[in-house]
Amino acid sequence: MKILKIASIPGDGIGREVVPAAIKVLEAIADVHGGLKFEFVEYPWSCEYYLEHGAMMPEDGLERLKEFDGIFLGAVGNPKIVPDHISLWGLLIKIRREFEQTINLRPAKMMNGIRSPLANPKDFDLIVIRENSEGEYSTVGGTIYQGEDEIAIQNAVFSRKATERAMRYAFDLASKRRSRVTSATKSNGIVYSMPFWDNVFKDVSKDYPDIQTDSQHIDALAAFFVTQPERFDVIVASNLFGDILTDIGAAVMGSIGIAPAANINVNGKYPSMFEPVHGSAPDIVGKGIANPIGQIWTAKMMLDHLGEEELGHQLLDVVEGVTGDGILTPDLGVRNTTKEVTEEIIHRLQAL
Amino acid sequence: MKILKIASIPGDGIGREVVPAAIKVLEAIADVHGGLKFEFVEYPWSCEYYLEHGAMMPEDGLERLKEFDGIFLGAVGNPKIVPDHISLWGLLIKIRREFEQTINLRPAKMMNGIRSPLANPKDFDLIVIRENSEGEYSTVGGTIYQGEDEIAIQNAVFSRKATERAMRYAFDLASKRRSRVTSATKSNGIVYSMPFWDNVFKDVSKDYPDIQTDSQHIDALAAFFVTQPERFDVIVASNLFGDILTDIGAAVMGSIGIAPAANINVNGKYPSMFEPVHGSAPDIVGKGIANPIGQIWTAKMMLDHLGEEELGHQLLDVVEGVTGDGILTPDLGVRNTTKEVTEEIIHRLQAL
Ligand SMILES: CC(C)[C@H](C(=O)O)[C@@H](O)C(=O)O
Ligand SMILES: CC(C)[C@H](C(=O)O)[C@@H](O)C(=O)O
Repeated sequence: MKILKIASIPGDGIGREVVPAAIKVLEAIADVHGGLKFEFVEYPWSCEYYLEHGAMMPEDGLERLKEFDGIFLGAVGNPKIVPDHISLWGLLIKIRREFEQTINLRPAKMMNGIRSPLANPKDFDLIVIRENSEGEYSTVGGTIYQGEDEIAIQNAVFSRKATERAMRYAFDLASKRRSRVTSATKSNGIVYSMPFWDNVFKDVSKDYPDIQTDSQHIDALAAFFVTQPERFDVIVASNLFGDILTDIGAAVMGSIGIAPAANINVNGKYPSMFEPVHGSAPDIVGKGIANPIGQIWTAKMMLDHLGEEELGHQLLDVVEGVTGDGILTPDLGVRNTTKEVTEEIIHRLQAL
Repeated sequence: MKILKIASIPGDGIGREVVPAAIKVLEAIADVHGGLKFEFVEYPWSCEYYLEHGAMMPEDGLERLKEFDGIFLGAVGNPKIVPDHISLWGLLIKIRREFEQTINLRPAKMMNGIRSPLANPKDFDLIVIRENSEGEYSTVGGTIYQGEDEIAIQNAVFSRKATERAMRYAFDLASKRRSRVTSATKSNGIVYSMPFWDNVFKDVSKDYPDIQTDSQHIDALAAFFVTQPERFDVIVASNLFGDILTDIGAAVMGSIGIAPAANINVNGKYPSMFEPVHGSAPDIVGKGIANPIGQIWTAKMMLDHLGEEELGHQLLDVVEGVTGDGILTPDLGVRNTTKEVTEEIIHRLQAL
């Protein structure tokens, strides 16, 4: 029996609705497999936890997470009670950084039965490799003077090591897909970091003569995500650009509620973390209508990462069967509940 | 007779096709007015000029431009013959900076007869106020070490002065529109510049109690531009965020070929510059099919800026009459030429 130990952190808002749903799905898929078992340990770390304990996680939080095979996170943030920079940097970004989850993987594709906001969407299937540890999110900078002379300086730090790592990841992945890598740049306007980014891209691409490459400025690329998403296979992007592109990708798929993501530790020292693109969505909390598909597709990415690609594949097939039959939550224009969508998926898994 | 002296810089690629077209339109509209005359002086500054002269403009180029009431620019850039950082920083960005064109105005709205790529677009009408002088485009930074230890550092400098100026511009404009300002932020991930940006926004908004405000993280905002552009009235954004949002706005309008822009000098010391959002589009040069509407709508913004709002209004009405009748270039799915669209607009202006 293969046992996978997973730390689950539902977090805030709808995270607490979709994580339990996706866990049920994972348990069902383990039964399908037969020789696989999940052991989940749930941690209540969240904004409410912060109000009670003065921290988003206990001091030994990371220590506790270390021993797991994976971290399954819902959503973090509830700015009404805790400022984002505390909640996010105390939990989500803290884990990304401390556990050296340097690669953020975010696929976007047309899903059966899900209507894109685009009038004539062509079939697209892309994945953004987002550098997840530095760049525009570097905590280097500060302010000087007060009042009208005040100046804020934000440093974006780009190391060759991290840039190259993200790019190699992208090229390696592309060689298992459609052999095309697009680099998101802005070297025509941002004159130090982005020309550097372009140089590294040029260097790395030399090692992959069979991969077709192109570079697009982020403004044009963002527009292409709307007008021609089918142009792309693998896109490699900085922390900020990857963040922006993947929200557009989610919108074009039809709902941010279905977009999955994985924060990958590539050196094997720490567990990776799996969290969908969507946030805690305070506006729909408690209504039972949160879309569970983002979290369930994220579970598929966790399966893939933990060596269960075959199961991951089966799971996504079942999900697309359900969406294809129009069993969808209100964000996708239908009226099914979180529970109904989840149960239908489980039902079909059990019938496999 | 009111005489407006305009420096025209067609620049590269389709700039040379759409600037002459828009100038003909401006001349026609001056005839409509009767008491107005344009005096155009054309400058051939471009990538080809660079190849011949070793610079994008002559040394006294800025000096020459100073005396004009406005600068009417097509597009700059032809990376096949001159690297972007030379062509853009030697002409486009140079003029923006040296002439203190600190505000970049970029409207986006549904146009009569132009099909958006969205399946169910609601009627939207928004304008992005882009800070145009600093932020992520600051030329502060550099690299250290070579090989695997190489690090690039890019500084984004945000001054209260420039930030506040952009925001006040946005609030003032909103008070003449639908009284709503949205701030594009990313303070949950970018921890020095963006919290500063948020603070300035909070401060400035206190002076405008009648304006409704909200702040959106750039990732979510980019997605909203696709899914609900009708939510927005005025959006104030940093240099980079404004750049990205306006390309998405152009895409959602139906074509980057129709999106206009103005680089405004607010202190009155130097002329403002009017250039559409699109670039030089080398792929369609010489085919006679470049969409002239971006440049013509940009001409309307120039009219507005030079105190001829009434004429500007008439011009846009005529343009929408033509687009409404389906007289459109191939980027909008029809087969009219640059010349046909332009002549139809002139024809209708003459009939006013
Ligand atoms: C060409 C480039 C430097 C420029 C910018 O980013 O400012 C362009 O994209 C624009 O928006 O005018
Ligand atoms: C919440 C925020 C800091 C985060 C990010 O920008 O990384 C989120 O947008 C994401 O994409 O996971």
